[in-house]
Amino acid sequence: MAAFTARHHRPPGLAIVLVGENPASEVYVRNKLKSGRAVGFLADLERLPAAASLADLLGLVERLNGSDQHDGILVQAPLPNGLGPDAATHVFDAIAPEKDVDGFAPGNVGRLVQGRPSLAPCTPLGVIEILTREGIAIAGRRACVIGRSEIVGKPMASLLLQRDATVTICHSKTPDLAAVCREADILVAAVGRAGLVTRSFVKPGATVVDVGMNTVTDPAIAATLFPEGHARLRLFRERGTVLVGDVHPEVAEVAGALTPVPGGVGPMTIAMLMMNTLRAAIARVAAGQTRAR
Amino acid sequence: MAAFTARHHRPPGLAIVLVGENPASEVYVRNKLKSGRAVGFLADLERLPAAASLADLLGLVERLNGSDQHDGILVQAPLPNGLGPDAATHVFDAIAPEKDVDGFAPGNVGRLVQGRPSLAPCTPLGVIEILTREGIAIAGRRACVIGRSEIVGKPMASLLLQRDATVTICHSKTPDLAAVCREADILVAAVGRAGLVTRSFVKPGATVVDVGMNTVTDPAIAATLFPEGHARLRLFRERGTVLVGDVHPEVAEVAGALTPVPGGVGPMTIAMLMMNTLRAAIARVAAGQTRAR
Repeated sequence: MAAFTARHHRPPGLAIVLVGENPASEVYVRNKLKSGRAVGFLADLERLPAAASLADLLGLVERLNGSDQHDGILVQAPLPNGLGPDAATHVFDAIAPEKDVDGFAPGNVGRLVQGRPSLAPCTPLGVIEILTREGIAIAGRRACVIGRSEIVGKPMASLLLQRDATVTICHSKTPDLAAVCREADILVAAVGRAGLVTRSFVKPGATVVDVGMNTVTDPAIAATLFPEGHARLRLFRERGTVLVGDVHPEVAEVAGALTPVPGGVGPMTIAMLMMNTLRAAIARVAAGQTRAR
Repeated sequence: MAAFTARHHRPPGLAIVLVGENPASEVYVRNKLKSGRAVGFLADLERLPAAASLADLLGLVERLNGSDQHDGILVQAPLPNGLGPDAATHVFDAIAPEKDVDGFAPGNVGRLVQGRPSLAPCTPLGVIEILTREGIAIAGRRACVIGRSEIVGKPMASLLLQRDATVTICHSKTPDLAAVCREADILVAAVGRAGLVTRSFVKPGATVVDVGMNTVTDPAIAATLFPEGHARLRLFRERGTVLVGDVHPEVAEVAGALTPVPGGVGPMTIAMLMMNTLRAAIARVAAGQTRAR
């Protein structure tokens, strides 16, 4: 990264677009900006009011597509409902594919599936990075992904398949979900339901990756997640809220390895956003040099 | 289709590009042309000699991209080795996405994954059509796809997932392939190995779809596929060759339903090519009318 800045006389640049004032989005965006600046990137926040029109938002994206300083553009989801039901698709499609650091553009999705170099979604990239750093073998193992979102489940399956796992994708229509998950050596939970994955979902010794980020405010649910006297239950009672994953804490007793929430996949997702921004910057510079020849 | 021709004063048009003289490709191309003409399409064969350069081929594709009469372009694989190792990628990427009736363009692959309208590969579309016509439920069932090619395995998995199957993708690195396949209610074999899928791969009553097209010339292999006295073994001994799928004939005794080879997925693949060409024609006309307004 420092090498990029020294060679090209500017840092890699990331523009984050935030529409409205969703409190969770505010936190996510702040963390991304902070991380970007911490590694020496240009990290700009572009805000639009909740009442902005789709045309306003598309105009902003168009301006950022043309910006020389910005290599990556991230439009924070979810968008306000007032923008209409297909707003997210319109907006994500409008981002220049070479600046699509979320990996949402159809061409980038297709290149990922085809195993060609592409900007891939940050969360599944982060999961692969965690497995790799922990020395957990993927090739020849059975992997199970719960959830089939465009942002996590589907690209996660593609990345695991590329690395020679035998991959199963489960979802809300999967009968006997626990039994299917118990086949997995690597289980990735990305559904957004607090504590869904209980002990019965996990083969003893399996690696469990928890992508869920669920804010629990219901004391009855909190009580099913933590035993009486647990530090996090006490904290919940003080604050009235606790952040938990899709994996029930009891899974720690049977899993071979388990990522924590918070502090597991989340920070690695942000690190991958920076990696994508740097990759986009390098590719843009290379393309510019090719054009200049 | 007749409605299209009547309304637009021209039939849907398909251009098939064949480079060199691969005997199997000659047969495939002839069948596609014949089917296209049988349903009243314009179906043109564009031939290049085996010694043609990549530039020649790209030039031909460029000309077909600009042709008003051709709605679909299919470049028959495999390309001659002389064109270089990445020729197929270059050529498939050069086809205009709206004429990409094979569904190979990254943007079309991405749109398929995202569940958006797109031109999808013909073979997996044909498999879905067969399952649908036979009244075989997909939602909530376990499906297993053997093979992870861009042309069959991966898009097959996407289409089954979209229809709410719980999908597992197996491949050459899957340990205990038979055991994994035995979990499936719907088993799709697309690997290109004669008779790989034996009785032990199949849960009793499962639906088995055989995408393989393997020409067997080795008498020892033929003898493992058919019992002594079987009509197809006699035919093999007369002709020295037999066309078989990836599924061993003994599977018929345990499967609930099994597609034949030849005569199963193959003809339906060609039918889906015609459907894609018609869809491309309708979309091109609609886009032209939008532009003209």
